[in-house]
Amino acid sequence: MEVGFLGLGIMGKAISMNLLRNGFKVTVWNRTLSKCDELVAHGATVGGSPAEVIKKCTITIGMLADPAAALSVVFDKGGVLEQICPGKGYIDMSTVDHETSIKISQAITSKGGHFLEAPVSGSKQPAETGQLVILSAGEKALYDEAISALNVIGKKAFFLGEVGNGAKMKLVVNMIMGCMMNTFSEGLVLAEKSGLDPRTLLDVLDLGGIANPMFKGKGPTMLQSNYAPAFPLKHQQKDMRLALALGDENAVSMPIAAAANEAFKKARSLGLGDNDFSAVFEVVKDLKRSS
Amino acid sequence: MEVGFLGLGIMGKAISMNLLRNGFKVTVWNRTLSKCDELVAHGATVGGSPAEVIKKCTITIGMLADPAAALSVVFDKGGVLEQICPGKGYIDMSTVDHETSIKISQAITSKGGHFLEAPVSGSKQPAETGQLVILSAGEKALYDEAISALNVIGKKAFFLGEVGNGAKMKLVVNMIMGCMMNTFSEGLVLAEKSGLDPRTLLDVLDLGGIANPMFKGKGPTMLQSNYAPAFPLKHQQKDMRLALALGDENAVSMPIAAAANEAFKKARSLGLGDNDFSAVFEVVKDLKRSS
Amino acid sequence: MEVGFLGLGIMGKAISMNLLRNGFKVTVWNRTLSKCDELVAHGATVGGSPAEVIKKCTITIGMLADPAAALSVVFDKGGVLEQICPGKGYIDMSTVDHETSIKISQAITSKGGHFLEAPVSGSKQPAETGQLVILSAGEKALYDEAISALNVIGKKAFFLGEVGNGAKMKLVVNMIMGCMMNTFSEGLVLAEKSGLDPRTLLDVLDLGGIANPMFKGKGPTMLQSNYAPAFPLKHQQKDMRLALALGDENAVSMPIAAAANEAFKKARSLGLGDNDFSAVFEVVKDLKRSS
Amino acid sequence: MEVGFLGLGIMGKAISMNLLRNGFKVTVWNRTLSKCDELVAHGATVGGSPAEVIKKCTITIGMLADPAAALSVVFDKGGVLEQICPGKGYIDMSTVDHETSIKISQAITSKGGHFLEAPVSGSKQPAETGQLVILSAGEKALYDEAISALNVIGKKAFFLGEVGNGAKMKLVVNMIMGCMMNTFSEGLVLAEKSGLDPRTLLDVLDLGGIANPMFKGKGPTMLQSNYAPAFPLKHQQKDMRLALALGDENAVSMPIAAAANEAFKKARSLGLGDNDFSAVFEVVKDLKRSS
Repeated sequence: MEVGFLGLGIMGKAISMNLLRNGFKVTVWNRTLSKCDELVAHGATVGGSPAEVIKKCTITIGMLADPAAALSVVFDKGGVLEQICPGKGYIDMSTVDHETSIKISQAITSKGGHFLEAPVSGSKQPAETGQLVILSAGEKALYDEAISALNVIGKKAFFLGEVGNGAKMKLVVNMIMGCMMNTFSEGLVLAEKSGLDPRTLLDVLDLGGIANPMFKGKGPTMLQSNYAPAFPLKHQQKDMRLALALGDENAVSMPIAAAANEAFKKARSLGLGDNDFSAVFEVVKDLKRSS
Repeated sequence: MEVGFLGLGIMGKAISMNLLRNGFKVTVWNRTLSKCDELVAHGATVGGSPAEVIKKCTITIGMLADPAAALSVVFDKGGVLEQICPGKGYIDMSTVDHETSIKISQAITSKGGHFLEAPVSGSKQPAETGQLVILSAGEKALYDEAISALNVIGKKAFFLGEVGNGAKMKLVVNMIMGCMMNTFSEGLVLAEKSGLDPRTLLDVLDLGGIANPMFKGKGPTMLQSNYAPAFPLKHQQKDMRLALALGDENAVSMPIAAAANEAFKKARSLGLGDNDFSAVFEVVKDLKRSS
Repeated sequence: MEVGFLGLGIMGKAISMNLLRNGFKVTVWNRTLSKCDELVAHGATVGGSPAEVIKKCTITIGMLADPAAALSVVFDKGGVLEQICPGKGYIDMSTVDHETSIKISQAITSKGGHFLEAPVSGSKQPAETGQLVILSAGEKALYDEAISALNVIGKKAFFLGEVGNGAKMKLVVNMIMGCMMNTFSEGLVLAEKSGLDPRTLLDVLDLGGIANPMFKGKGPTMLQSNYAPAFPLKHQQKDMRLALALGDENAVSMPIAAAANEAFKKARSLGLGDNDFSAVFEVVKDLKRSS
Repeated sequence: MEVGFLGLGIMGKAISMNLLRNGFKVTVWNRTLSKCDELVAHGATVGGSPAEVIKKCTITIGMLADPAAALSVVFDKGGVLEQICPGKGYIDMSTVDHETSIKISQAITSKGGHFLEAPVSGSKQPAETGQLVILSAGEKALYDEAISALNVIGKKAFFLGEVGNGAKMKLVVNMIMGCMMNTFSEGLVLAEKSGLDPRTLLDVLDLGGIANPMFKGKGPTMLQSNYAPAFPLKHQQKDMRLALALGDENAVSMPIAAAANEAFKKARSLGLGDNDFSAVFEVVKDLKRSS
């Protein structure tokens, strides 16, 4: 099966590499074309623009950094819209707000193209090993057509109904994740400042009812102040902001999410936006006045 | 081995039943003595006061509802102090602040008795099946002496050093748990109000990096507004308050924990204190004005 | 001096009446023209459309209800844009977000016209007596030209620099106001629940370092659960949201504003959006579960 | 009239100086006796212990730093209790929790002494000029007897009923004040980061409905990072903690106060506890990672 792939950031690169490893033919495009080199070395073809990739492939997947990039790859000159047409499908795996998703969907379907939004849950490592959770919504027919690729990319591909629902589900999950990372950070600092060994806290947590892969995986690296980005903090904060906006629309009061969002913003103001989102730990730890 | 047991609330009853099932001779006491009946039916003996239990047993375990009850059982007339002496040990499994723990420890050791604080992580079901996590601290010799009982009560018994450390570790874990329950509630309400099926959210969460037994176990009952108390909300709120106080002592700023604490307080003001702590979900859901 | 005036709502009518009383010639327009009658009785002339008013007057002031109305009066058929030209100025006193302000500014200056945004602080009574605070920004030359009118309209007319700064200043002030209303509500409930007379709290507050007209004015009505809208809660919440968005843009962490915003959202979910913003008091008071 | 005075911190010194200036005979005591020198230079007498002061004076006022100090001055060797007796009154102006106040009251009345708690609202300058607001509660007869002194110390002396109510009222006021200081800080930083002049924000605020002496007085010094302590941050944080504890007792959820408390704790962790409470501004401003 031939698949197009737009956007080779941390996630996009891992997913397309995984597709290649599983025997898919992949045509890739990235704004900075040099980022395609490693994929090409593993057998990918390069498209000169999103439009070229769409032209060549029946199904094209996009994985862009944010709503602006997701829109740009579709609407700009040389974008998806120029070549999308009946018989071709575009699957947007970017994490965007549902309004962006709906806007893209309308543009593509108005050209006769097929659209599926399919944001994923999971970061770099699950992306490399095909263990993502895929939150797709939109055209069921395209979901069915792409299922062999989706099954390689993720361990489970949900179909959630109308376009926008994938984006919303993703935001809800990431909102919970961001809050948990904050409370985990508070717990680690509280332990240490109270004379407990935070590594023992990790052991205790891992045996109890709130044990989870994120605490187990991130805990040890956080204690080493190692924040190599699996999921950049600035993206986590964007998702918190969008989740809060979704809550605002529906008059859902979310004080925990709001407090967590402000901590992530503080982390951004400390210059940590490009670090892993676990770097919010730094906000909870001792800080110094700036001048 | 013969063990005394003081306090037959939800947790105390489950633990002493588990001890009986595992062949321990258990002498129980409870403020309301009628609560001892079920234990007696399973082979327990009853002591007329904490002091009587201590007199009869080499090792006695206490599991009281709060710091006041934990202190009362030791210091009041007929309390532990009246009979504790060299060669006898008291293990306090109540979740109390470290100052209470230290106060009890000093009183007992001043009489020549041995003391171990040993709060547990886990609620009713793990208590019944001996799957608690035990956070003990104090006299290592008593820990070693009681290890066969501790190994029946829990799947893992940590020894954390000086008295107070068990209490502190427990508070840190419960603080994280309480925050997670709040953010989980926010996520469930946000999903539902945004047109998503909250049951699907449970499925999605369970496949990802933040999957944990608590979400999996509590999610379905919360969606049925079923809050049968495994861990009463008022105790969760007390632990949040104590964790925040521990943070205050050490100048640790914990905005997420603080926001979660206020939600638990709101739940108390709704009259939900005796429900399971997952009833904080009700605070996030639609509310009405009171008059 | 001759001045045009677009929009005769509560505020617009009060301001143009005040201008007439102070000897200005005023040409008014309102979507419902009958609203002009009272002004005509006091000496005003009527223009048939915004464009006609602009054509007739060198300086025209607009005071519209919301961003949609502010845009409509400029961009619609018969709107400001049709007649604005070099030598003519438009001063928009509506409270809008800075993006709306910038959009209007760009359209007007592209026609060679002059633009000043000038949202005001203060409600009906200060408008009638010329005691508003004017937060103007844009072209300094227009500010200077209009200063005699601005000095009649307000007790103080600030010039804040580039277009958008007026809107931003308004958001900052309203953000602080919204947080103060929340903390005031918390204080009143805390007093009452602690056995103190909340009316005495009002007296105590009014004698101290945080005494302010809002506490003095709103306190007594809040204690009577009287929330007749001077500033609707939904508009206050919108301003909190926009202030937080402004903070997000600039990586300013604002945990108090975030918590206050969530309380206003809770108030909206209780159906209080059209009440005065002081109705957030209801969120802090006792609530009931919805079902 | 002769008055005893225990505790010569910032507030105690200012109040006793004011009493001296107004013709009262004052016998002072302070833990560090050298602090009495300046008062002696202005005519005060020194007592060697709290008990000595009580012995000498019919009415003695205490103004101690915190609950521990307030208790110590009463219960320790050489303390108030040793000499209090029928006909003698003790007025405690310290800001303490109501439980501390009740404990002191019971001890004094059990010796036949008279007790009034009388925490004050206002800081150093109002203390010097007799412009405090006095929140007294306890024995009305002692209030009446001391009224001439109270009227010199404050511009208004409320009598609030049973002992504990003064403490509670003080906490409510200080809670509101602390929240306002936080939101004021957020507003100043938001203004600056958004390209507005924060000094202009001060001018705008001072003309509107939320204008208050604290914003007017503290704003300019905060913008100069000048935090000379009028009311030390650590005391403000203590009062926030106590107000939250009062809310906890009565199941009052106070998310704004909770968020503000965490900001004050962050300020303490930055080493700002001895600065003025307006130093919480530093927490909102840019911070750096510690290492």
